[in-house]
Amino acid sequence: MSIVTSHLSISLDGYTAGPNQSLQNPLGEGGERLHEWAVKTASWRAMHGESGGEASPDSDVAAEVSSGVGAYIMGRGMFGNGARYPGGGEWDESWRGWWGEEPPYHAPVFVLTHHPRGPLTMQGGTTFNFVTDGIESALTQARAAANGQTILIAGGAATVNQYLAAGLIDDLWLHIAPITLGSGERLFGGADVRLEPVDCRQTDLVTHVRYRILK
Amino acid sequence: MSIVTSHLSISLDGYTAGPNQSLQNPLGEGGERLHEWAVKTASWRAMHGESGGEASPDSDVAAEVSSGVGAYIMGRGMFGNGARYPGGGEWDESWRGWWGEEPPYHAPVFVLTHHPRGPLTMQGGTTFNFVTDGIESALTQARAAANGQTILIAGGAATVNQYLAAGLIDDLWLHIAPITLGSGERLFGGADVRLEPVDCRQTDLVTHVRYRILK
Repeated sequence: MSIVTSHLSISLDGYTAGPNQSLQNPLGEGGERLHEWAVKTASWRAMHGESGGEASPDSDVAAEVSSGVGAYIMGRGMFGNGARYPGGGEWDESWRGWWGEEPPYHAPVFVLTHHPRGPLTMQGGTTFNFVTDGIESALTQARAAANGQTILIAGGAATVNQYLAAGLIDDLWLHIAPITLGSGERLFGGADVRLEPVDCRQTDLVTHVRYRILK
Repeated sequence: MSIVTSHLSISLDGYTAGPNQSLQNPLGEGGERLHEWAVKTASWRAMHGESGGEASPDSDVAAEVSSGVGAYIMGRGMFGNGARYPGGGEWDESWRGWWGEEPPYHAPVFVLTHHPRGPLTMQGGTTFNFVTDGIESALTQARAAANGQTILIAGGAATVNQYLAAGLIDDLWLHIAPITLGSGERLFGGADVRLEPVDCRQTDLVTHVRYRILK
């Protein structure tokens, strides 16, 4: 049986993106600072087809949260449709995600949307499948595709919040960045979630805490 | 030269107290869950004149954040006047704080207020001094009293936020409780604060992260 995980970078004041997210600035103002720790790591760079970066405890965590993933689920905002069509328009079929022709997933990705679209097969093993009948259906499809491997709820926070509120996530890594953003997109969204910290690793850039979600 | 520190228990969604704080419920709804880790520890219980409790990494942290403190600063809300007189009334001289005749401070405490009141000498070495001319004056007075020992900004979050925004805190421990509160009193208050994590300790009840504040 697959476990369902997620991991998010979050500011000390609880934001997973800064204010005023847009197509030009999908992480919002200041939001790129949440991910500074990741982009410096060798493992993140390798996943995104770049060389260099540091071998570090941060790199180990970046590798760990991405290993053994058999299927991904993401919101339409993360795929990019939310920023392109804030009102929620039909698909522009020329839009194939933010990641170029070889996205860093190498597995089936289930994109939550209200607008049907046929599967999009990319290079390197990534297929984007568009799911219009809700988060539980997406999870069922992801389970079938993952074949016992981990299912990762990739984001954004609104999608993670839906799965948390429904009690469908088993395991959550938070990468707590030592910054404040003041406003923006918030994790948890008011849901009453009880967790148990089970791992903690720290560098001078970020504190990684792994939580088991208590049901 | 004294270093200026603070430490606060905080929920994963960034709250240091729950909603609807009152005289009967100064921590707000659900806010007592932020402090569950502390009240189980031997060191916290000893500080509050109670026996028992567990010797644990949590107990070590509770002892560490309280050791070597030469003076405390707190807001009127933490002293209790805020809850008694939400509009900010004159002093009821019969009010001597929440802690009984022997408060757990054993050192000078500087209480920020708009209403003058003479010093209040309690048992066990605690004296409450009421400061009406602002946070910098309180810090100057605390420095003189601390004589090189640590100055602890005891709370609440509004007071810590004022000192953070003014760049007057050197060192901050956050005790990150694995719960969500949904609303309540927030740390940071929108201030742009840059920190560097320098220590991290975890049990199944809480994650303690120590930050150095970057100036």
